[in-house]
Amino acid sequence: MVSSETTNNVADELDTLLLRLQKLVVDYVKEGQNADNAVVRYYSPEDLYKRIDLALPDSGAGVDGKGLNHLDYDRLTRLNIVETFDLIKDTLKYSVNTWNPRFMDKLYAGTNPIGVVSELLLAILNSNSHVYHCSPVLSLMEIEVTRATAQLLNMGKDSGGILCPGGSASNLLAVVTARNKLYPSIKSKGYMPRPFNADADYGVLKLFTSSHSHYSIDQAAQVLGLGLDNVVKVPTDDEGRMLVSELERLLQESVARGETPFFINATSGTTVMGAFDPLDKIARLAKKYNCWCHADGSWGGSAVFSDQVTRTKDWFRGSDLVDSFTINPHKLLGVPLQCSMLLTPHNGHVMFARTNSIKADYLFHGNAVDLGAATIGCGRRPDALKVFLAWKFYGKQGLGQRVDRALCSASEFMDLVRRRRGFILVKDPCPFLQICFWYVPESIKDQVDAWKSQSDGGALGKIAVVTRTIQQRINHSGAYLVDHAPLPGVPDFFRIVINAPTVSVDRDLVGLLDRIESVGNDVNWEKIFEQ
Amino acid sequence: MVSSETTNNVADELDTLLLRLQKLVVDYVKEGQNADNAVVRYYSPEDLYKRIDLALPDSGAGVDGKGLNHLDYDRLTRLNIVETFDLIKDTLKYSVNTWNPRFMDKLYAGTNPIGVVSELLLAILNSNSHVYHCSPVLSLMEIEVTRATAQLLNMGKDSGGILCPGGSASNLLAVVTARNKLYPSIKSKGYMPRPFNADADYGVLKLFTSSHSHYSIDQAAQVLGLGLDNVVKVPTDDEGRMLVSELERLLQESVARGETPFFINATSGTTVMGAFDPLDKIARLAKKYNCWCHADGSWGGSAVFSDQVTRTKDWFRGSDLVDSFTINPHKLLGVPLQCSMLLTPHNGHVMFARTNSIKADYLFHGNAVDLGAATIGCGRRPDALKVFLAWKFYGKQGLGQRVDRALCSASEFMDLVRRRRGFILVKDPCPFLQICFWYVPESIKDQVDAWKSQSDGGALGKIAVVTRTIQQRINHSGAYLVDHAPLPGVPDFFRIVINAPTVSVDRDLVGLLDRIESVGNDVNWEKIFEQ
Repeated sequence: MVSSETTNNVADELDTLLLRLQKLVVDYVKEGQNADNAVVRYYSPEDLYKRIDLALPDSGAGVDGKGLNHLDYDRLTRLNIVETFDLIKDTLKYSVNTWNPRFMDKLYAGTNPIGVVSELLLAILNSNSHVYHCSPVLSLMEIEVTRATAQLLNMGKDSGGILCPGGSASNLLAVVTARNKLYPSIKSKGYMPRPFNADADYGVLKLFTSSHSHYSIDQAAQVLGLGLDNVVKVPTDDEGRMLVSELERLLQESVARGETPFFINATSGTTVMGAFDPLDKIARLAKKYNCWCHADGSWGGSAVFSDQVTRTKDWFRGSDLVDSFTINPHKLLGVPLQCSMLLTPHNGHVMFARTNSIKADYLFHGNAVDLGAATIGCGRRPDALKVFLAWKFYGKQGLGQRVDRALCSASEFMDLVRRRRGFILVKDPCPFLQICFWYVPESIKDQVDAWKSQSDGGALGKIAVVTRTIQQRINHSGAYLVDHAPLPGVPDFFRIVINAPTVSVDRDLVGLLDRIESVGNDVNWEKIFEQ
Repeated sequence: MVSSETTNNVADELDTLLLRLQKLVVDYVKEGQNADNAVVRYYSPEDLYKRIDLALPDSGAGVDGKGLNHLDYDRLTRLNIVETFDLIKDTLKYSVNTWNPRFMDKLYAGTNPIGVVSELLLAILNSNSHVYHCSPVLSLMEIEVTRATAQLLNMGKDSGGILCPGGSASNLLAVVTARNKLYPSIKSKGYMPRPFNADADYGVLKLFTSSHSHYSIDQAAQVLGLGLDNVVKVPTDDEGRMLVSELERLLQESVARGETPFFINATSGTTVMGAFDPLDKIARLAKKYNCWCHADGSWGGSAVFSDQVTRTKDWFRGSDLVDSFTINPHKLLGVPLQCSMLLTPHNGHVMFARTNSIKADYLFHGNAVDLGAATIGCGRRPDALKVFLAWKFYGKQGLGQRVDRALCSASEFMDLVRRRRGFILVKDPCPFLQICFWYVPESIKDQVDAWKSQSDGGALGKIAVVTRTIQQRINHSGAYLVDHAPLPGVPDFFRIVINAPTVSVDRDLVGLLDRIESVGNDVNWEKIFEQ
């Protein structure tokens, strides 16, 4: 049925394709590494549809129309005009080049050579880390890398964890685990009070998280049927850190109302400002009120790889006291997307399996190294390999130096913003790697000068328009990708994320401020404000 | 801060690494394509720990210890003995080689050259398909490939969908969507009856699914706080198809008890037997009882790519009537893990966004092509590219032929099993691509001959022991990876999944039966039974 010729052709076909692709991807990286190239050739969806062939054909294109397709040499041939590699070239051409250090829009950056290697390795293995006998090496790597990372957080010798498809998924698993562990009857009977759930030993369940925390906590609450209204948003200080006194007040009030607080989320590196909540104090309050304490370190958690950080900052004080901790190496450590870990001091993946697993005899035959049982999914990408390999390649030191370098660049950038006329830091100093600021063009300075002290609504609105207008023009030019961000009570501001190790302060960051200023001077603001 | 030399070195480093890896991976594919090689060199976790260096170092290994590491040339050098490529070689050596057609254990197989190319492309892009401006091309590909697949299911011109990290995640999103759409107050107030949720217009919510369905439906129920006890398992016929009459009876009884049925899951290709539930009849009942009708086609849904299937089988009759449909191209279509789509006729991803999204101003600035809003996650791997590229490369025809070839091999294999002495099909014919059978060694034939008709408990137990013993010996030998499966009331049986297009009936499948027989003859069964 399958000739040996066909069989060999699969490897040959791969060889041919990889050789051809290698030149494209290396050129793409070179293009990205030259920061003067565009980060993206921006087109609206309507325009992009015209530039790239997105029709899905009945017959395949194959490679060069020469029929290397190994399914059927005779029938699947050159019926399609557009070749696969033309499409690949177009995909590269019109995508965001994340290797460019001027991609500063999100909390991830481009990856690195060993990251690409690890993805290629995963592609070749096409493995699934649900059961050990299908992914023996990858399962052990997952156990080792989660244990080692949990130990950086001082979670002790029984610590460990599990990989989830992203930070939101890790946070969701944390909430599910907390609920099932504290109120196990919900797993079988559902989240209903008596008499619907005769075993109900709780009032309305409440989650506590800061007003600056990530929306995945709200998503978890709505998915779990707890309801968005039962997420209590704790006020923060002006740096974005949860106010512990407010947390305690809100916990007391909740208990007084007969509710059942059960989950407190602390954030280690908030999405907008980069603030670190005080883990030690929050964890102690959690214990007092019989709550699970989770830390969402999706963004900032990776800073624990830096000795300089753990020596000089209090960001991880109390990390040994939390019940679970999310870290996304795909953000700050440059590991390719997706790579997120949920860590715990309480017996690692075994605890997650015991709390959340469901009897599925056809998959799990009782092996303790079958990691899939610890998740709420089934099949799973072995993402652990990627952070494992990055650690082997760079060492903890190398990963920590990446963090240090980013912090150093961020600090220098903050200085630049601070000293430059027309630029105002939202919070000085910025707590982490997001530099947040407003820019007031010289031409409208008089109009908005007093906005900060007087809370002039009109001036506030103008500043927001300035931010969004300049940001959009810069992004659409492709020179940089940067984001604007909102916070209650203040106008939208620029949020510049410093992450890639190839960011140059003199070239990329001074250049960004120059460009903001230059766009700001070019725009006729009166005309914009009228619209 | 970063010299141009360092900058160029990133691309050069990638070039070097890829060149070096290419030979390894092509050799690995060649090894896998020679079916006589081991599928896996099996070791227990304890033994594997001794054979592969899994310690995570403080300093990085770099490449060849020559310091290509671009973070810091001076400090990160040859401190580690084991080089990264030795580790990669070991990873390949001790992993399951899914390119080997004798990997028949799970519902996925090895991928193919264009699959590897698509993963490498994703690695290079390191993109995140939450917002359009970060993933313009990939977002449009996702919209097009979900629309095109939904249209194969006759879901109409407004259909489309969204990619999720696996079939369980797609099924979970389907249940969340159904609940939020039918009972929107739960999203904000939580799943509580009055007076806790003053807007509650439901009794205890109930899900219906067949007793042969995948455990992800149960997982969804427990995650959502609906409770495992509120999943109603509908009996099946002896092929594993949901009995519609039983479904209706159970719905009526539930309503009579004052409960609120809201979700019916039909399975298109069950995990163990491969049965297809009758979508048309189930969808009509769902409508009658105001339930959301979901089809879990994680495994069998991809068969819709085959014209032969849609012409000659009734598997997809009624696919136009369901509210949502899960398809995992990473299973039957050879797309690399993970790739799962959740499809709907009700306005595609826009419906998912409207139903499930949460205001997160710092990420979503109001763009309708920001697909992340349609998920319960945030960041997301752009897995759609992989099925898009496979479709472009092979065409719908090529993908359909892969299905046809598998069905043809499965049918031939079934014939072999049927005709061979000592082998008994669990259900004749097997409905899909899983060939399920028992094997009774000649030496114990007399002891267990009457087991099927007489339900002799002792004999049943012996057959289960035979299945598990032979399966484990074959798997540990590495010659094949196959699975055993349980079903209530019958002893464990072999479940052989036919998927890879490189499976040869004469070589791989005859060879498997020979091996089962030969192990069966070698074992001293009396001794095993005594244990």
